Amino acid sequence: MEFDTIAAISTPMGEGAIAIVRLSGDDSIQIADRLFNSINGKKLSEVPTHTIHYGHLVDPKNDLVIEEVMVSVMRGPKTFTKEDVIEINCHGGIVSVNRVLQYVLKYGARLAEPGEFTKRAFLNGRIDLSQAEAVMDLIRAKTDRAMNVALGQMEGRLSKLISSLRQEILEILAHVEVNIDYPEYDDVEEMTHKMLAEKALYVREEIKKLLQTSEQGKILREGLSTVIVGRPNVGKSSLLNSLVHENKAIVTDIPGTTRDVIEEYVNVRGVPLRLLDTAGIRETEDIVERIGVERSRQVLKEADLILLVLNYSDQLTTEDENLFEAVRGMDVIVIINKTDLPQEIDMEKVKSIAAGHKIVTTSLLEDKGVDELEEAISSLFFAGSIEAGDMTYVSNSRHIALLNQSLQAIEEAIDGVEMGTPIDIVQIDLTRTWELLGEIIGDSVHESLIDQLFSQFCLGK
Amino acid sequence: MEFDTIAAISTPMGEGAIAIVRLSGDDSIQIADRLFNSINGKKLSEVPTHTIHYGHLVDPKNDLVIEEVMVSVMRGPKTFTKEDVIEINCHGGIVSVNRVLQYVLKYGARLAEPGEFTKRAFLNGRIDLSQAEAVMDLIRAKTDRAMNVALGQMEGRLSKLISSLRQEILEILAHVEVNIDYPEYDDVEEMTHKMLAEKALYVREEIKKLLQTSEQGKILREGLSTVIVGRPNVGKSSLLNSLVHENKAIVTDIPGTTRDVIEEYVNVRGVPLRLLDTAGIRETEDIVERIGVERSRQVLKEADLILLVLNYSDQLTTEDENLFEAVRGMDVIVIINKTDLPQEIDMEKVKSIAAGHKIVTTSLLEDKGVDELEEAISSLFFAGSIEAGDMTYVSNSRHIALLNQSLQAIEEAIDGVEMGTPIDIVQIDLTRTWELLGEIIGDSVHESLIDQLFSQFCLGK
Repeated sequence: MEFDTIAAISTPMGEGAIAIVRLSGDDSIQIADRLFNSINGKKLSEVPTHTIHYGHLVDPKNDLVIEEVMVSVMRGPKTFTKEDVIEINCHGGIVSVNRVLQYVLKYGARLAEPGEFTKRAFLNGRIDLSQAEAVMDLIRAKTDRAMNVALGQMEGRLSKLISSLRQEILEILAHVEVNIDYPEYDDVEEMTHKMLAEKALYVREEIKKLLQTSEQGKILREGLSTVIVGRPNVGKSSLLNSLVHENKAIVTDIPGTTRDVIEEYVNVRGVPLRLLDTAGIRETEDIVERIGVERSRQVLKEADLILLVLNYSDQLTTEDENLFEAVRGMDVIVIINKTDLPQEIDMEKVKSIAAGHKIVTTSLLEDKGVDELEEAISSLFFAGSIEAGDMTYVSNSRHIALLNQSLQAIEEAIDGVEMGTPIDIVQIDLTRTWELLGEIIGDSVHESLIDQLFSQFCLGK
Repeated sequence: MEFDTIAAISTPMGEGAIAIVRLSGDDSIQIADRLFNSINGKKLSEVPTHTIHYGHLVDPKNDLVIEEVMVSVMRGPKTFTKEDVIEINCHGGIVSVNRVLQYVLKYGARLAEPGEFTKRAFLNGRIDLSQAEAVMDLIRAKTDRAMNVALGQMEGRLSKLISSLRQEILEILAHVEVNIDYPEYDDVEEMTHKMLAEKALYVREEIKKLLQTSEQGKILREGLSTVIVGRPNVGKSSLLNSLVHENKAIVTDIPGTTRDVIEEYVNVRGVPLRLLDTAGIRETEDIVERIGVERSRQVLKEADLILLVLNYSDQLTTEDENLFEAVRGMDVIVIINKTDLPQEIDMEKVKSIAAGHKIVTTSLLEDKGVDELEEAISSLFFAGSIEAGDMTYVSNSRHIALLNQSLQAIEEAIDGVEMGTPIDIVQIDLTRTWELLGEIIGDSVHESLIDQLFSQFCLGK
């Protein structure tokens, strides 16, 4: 395919030693050449591919130095996008890297949309859609395990599985075709039915196996959305801090000082927790506080795990009971904090109201009970079953949805065979299974879906 | 010089498309080779210098893939450090780049100290100390002008000036030597005195010229430390937001919601303002609020500019008067905000108490008066004198201190000549001037100073 030349800052924004402005497209080298003064006078258009060159970017209008740079020249098709790629390594300051970007845009490049480099790698056929999606998963990975899942997917492990299942379906479909074309051969029909049933059952089992990995895969990929709830001053911020081992939220003795929903990633025994500290669920007249409370309610709805904190040195209140009511039916761990103070809470009452939820007692002040809490979190979701090995996890919601639809379609095909439905009706369900699986790897997907998928990428990728 | 092999993450931390782990030292290529599986089977030790190679990092123990990478091989001495340099470009995720770093450390590299790459460039004689310092200035530059100052210094513009001044002093010293060695030649002594006076005066003028650029240079480099003060609810946060054109501080109608000293850089007509919003200077019983107030007082002492905000629709209070008292003798711009409300403030009284400080009226709610304020800030410090041109600004506090000491030393030498002090006494002052100037470019500086300077660098540079 032919595209224009795009450019973007490909390193995270911030102060660092090195930043990269990346260009991809037919004009990449020519644009870089207009700005680049090599230390030895070489033109980039004349250097070998995959070589690095030191020099300065210079404003062609007034010969003033823009930046001191190293330029990498990589000619397609052996590049990330399969196009000509230029990487300009400059000093990692915000002004510096923006200045370099502005100049390449001024001299002919277009600012890349988020994910546009990876999108080209996909559109130019270097990787399939599930591999492209894995690139972003890899960047966003919060734990080693999540990164391994992404790496495996990026290398095409999922793609291979999906492709082999589609191959099975294609073989069934080929037999079905024969059967439809030559209905007079009874033995063909019989064989088709037998083979169809066998193969379809195999495909169904494989899809089921993949879906079985999806719950854990999704947690590994997206983190376990975890909300801390509790009355004011029971130790919600202290709990957040204990888990983060840092001190990002304000902790004081004044109730209601946690004003915003703070998001924080923690790696709890290989499980990425997306911790959301909240302003609590009580009503208040304080505007700032109330904004926090409203946000909290929204956040609660989408949580995977609730950490409900109670005060060991205080009796259960109606507020506490309301909290239990609000999180009914969710995954909850009850934390009874402040065991360093005299007991006032009625443990029997807690057990009764907790209704089977795991209960952990802590003294966050004295750093007691956090290990037990982490153990409770980890076993609630993985129950010792997670392996470091190289299992193929399905982690992406889009893939999970498509696998569920494929499963339904293949089951309809199987039902059809069993009920003796005419083979050309069964064929429709089989074809649909084949297509749905194809969408996972980007075979025959809508352009709008592709645009939407890549728009979630970070800039410069 | 011979050093061990160091490694560090050289891109800013965060999620981005690409991150770089950089190695420098004799073992760089060998360490990378142990981990790298090239796509075409090539060993990095055998490839030409300044070339780029695609492949995977693989754990030598279990052959599991660590990351998909591009490795750049750059052999010394034509590198940043003059040593062998390896740059491993991996996916820009936090887990990914840390994993790559951990492996290169495990296989023989040592974690680099902050600034250690640049330190090696200095110790290996590729750049002098003022150039090394400019590298960090360039990364930290907050405006285009600041970046140009750093670029100029990095290219050795300041070094050249300093070197030529030292050359002048050396010539004087040579003549002095002749005079001391052959005191019998009267005409030599006379010539020495004349030439000495002439050259010393020239050196003094050049040092003075450089120092004249220092106030503006320092502002360009470090930003103008600006503190916003005012009673609660006069619009301090709104002022911050207006200047930032973003919405980072919490703005509500409740007095005292700005809990922390927030730091924010703004580019006001080429002048970088380091804006510090504060919780105000009033006493309060609220603990959170008080923490803010105590910090505010500290910050106030170190400010270059005070933006003192008054309420147009309220009378001057004792608190306002205390604020004027607290900032007496400092650079102050008085902002009378809320002109959208009915006037209650006594302007004559403000003018009297402002005692010559610039007064600007604003309605931040209606976005009025911000231009005038920016104009006032810019003209207070640069009075139209700042040029886009390529003047050499001295911006670094260390350089300014050394130039001031050099100026004092050369003036003592000149005084000595004028008062007929014996020439060997004058020689001491001249030598001292030469040495002090030498410290700017890192000639004969203490190792401890060098360590301390580079420790302020960012990691990976």
